[in-house]
Amino acid sequence: MQYPKDSRPVGDLRSNMDAYGISAELQNQFTRSITFHGITAPGVFIAVFMVDYCLELLGAHPRERLYAISETYRCVPDPVQVVTGCTFGNHRLQVIPIGKFALTMNRPADTPETEGVRVYVDADKLKDFPLINAWYTHSPGFSSLNMIYPLIDEILKAGRDILSVQRVRVHVPLKQSWKSVRCSSCGELVPDMMVEGKVCRGCGPASYYEVISPC
Amino acid sequence: MQYPKDSRPVGDLRSNMDAYGISAELQNQFTRSITFHGITAPGVFIAVFMVDYCLELLGAHPRERLYAISETYRCVPDPVQVVTGCTFGNHRLQVIPIGKFALTMNRPADTPETEGVRVYVDADKLKDFPLINAWYTHSPGFSSLNMIYPLIDEILKAGRDILSVQRVRVHVPLKQSWKSVRCSSCGELVPDMMVEGKVCRGCGPASYYEVISPC
Repeated sequence: MQYPKDSRPVGDLRSNMDAYGISAELQNQFTRSITFHGITAPGVFIAVFMVDYCLELLGAHPRERLYAISETYRCVPDPVQVVTGCTFGNHRLQVIPIGKFALTMNRPADTPETEGVRVYVDADKLKDFPLINAWYTHSPGFSSLNMIYPLIDEILKAGRDILSVQRVRVHVPLKQSWKSVRCSSCGELVPDMMVEGKVCRGCGPASYYEVISPC
Repeated sequence: MQYPKDSRPVGDLRSNMDAYGISAELQNQFTRSITFHGITAPGVFIAVFMVDYCLELLGAHPRERLYAISETYRCVPDPVQVVTGCTFGNHRLQVIPIGKFALTMNRPADTPETEGVRVYVDADKLKDFPLINAWYTHSPGFSSLNMIYPLIDEILKAGRDILSVQRVRVHVPLKQSWKSVRCSSCGELVPDMMVEGKVCRGCGPASYYEVISPC
């Protein structure tokens, strides 16, 4: 299959956004998300549309106190953090690595479960968008060398047309109480629920480094 | 034990930073990190010092292409993302949930392993800082109602005095090749390595929601 290739300069994206009727607010969210992400990645544009759709379905303001679950580490967490203020460090964003461009958002709740909305890239809707389909399915025919800007253009044109939505019921995690204990191996302090036996997870199953020397 | 309590307005933090000789660049990193995080959390200030220390040990510029591993979801990921540009969505930050205020950073490498630096809150150094010690060890004597600003002040005064550093060897993850497959249960597309049997992880072990209805 032949896909369209790059023939336009980057700057044209902005005028295409105007032509596709993309609001100034969304354009601003693209800019802030790409700046945070560090590269002009196609997935960031899709994720901005996903966040915007979630907020609309919830009837929520971007800076309202919300919770988010992304089903992938690819791109999606960055617009979620930038646009909604749900971050990893404030515990309002988590990733459950399922491998899908899907995002669930909900309001805070005092109950063990609550209702939220899930927005996802719908495989059946990708048929009308050959470049997005090739990129999303990691097709060997897709080249990130010269198809990125035509792809982004197709994403901008598609907007929500590649997304589907569900109302879902999600579990609300309880805040765990903990006390601090010292690992019998490294001597560092960790919360007690992070210790298996007397050894912290860093000295046990989650070990990821060897010490060369103190600096 | 009696800890100092709030007696000063928030605005005094800035003049204390000047008094403690904290550079304008670090002060700017505090502001950006707190804005991103959404609340004036003590851990964010410690994490900014940790990031700054890592960068200095690596001799790196904040916007250089680096990789980071945080050993906790608490606060630390946010300054890492804001200051270094290592984000979850661009795969240059990962969290290994060990429960420690510890951060490892390294440069890109073509080898399976590379050297990095690990900066961590050192339990033995907390003895001289009663509020930080009480907060970090989750002591029942610590009240987040009226000790947060005295705590932040102690953190600003301590700077790197509560941190220790190690040179470490870390594993460099290989980029995995994958193809897209359709889950036999939900029908959505996922990378093949995210499928167990013919079912995606979202329909299997990582299931986190029940569908109420399409929207």
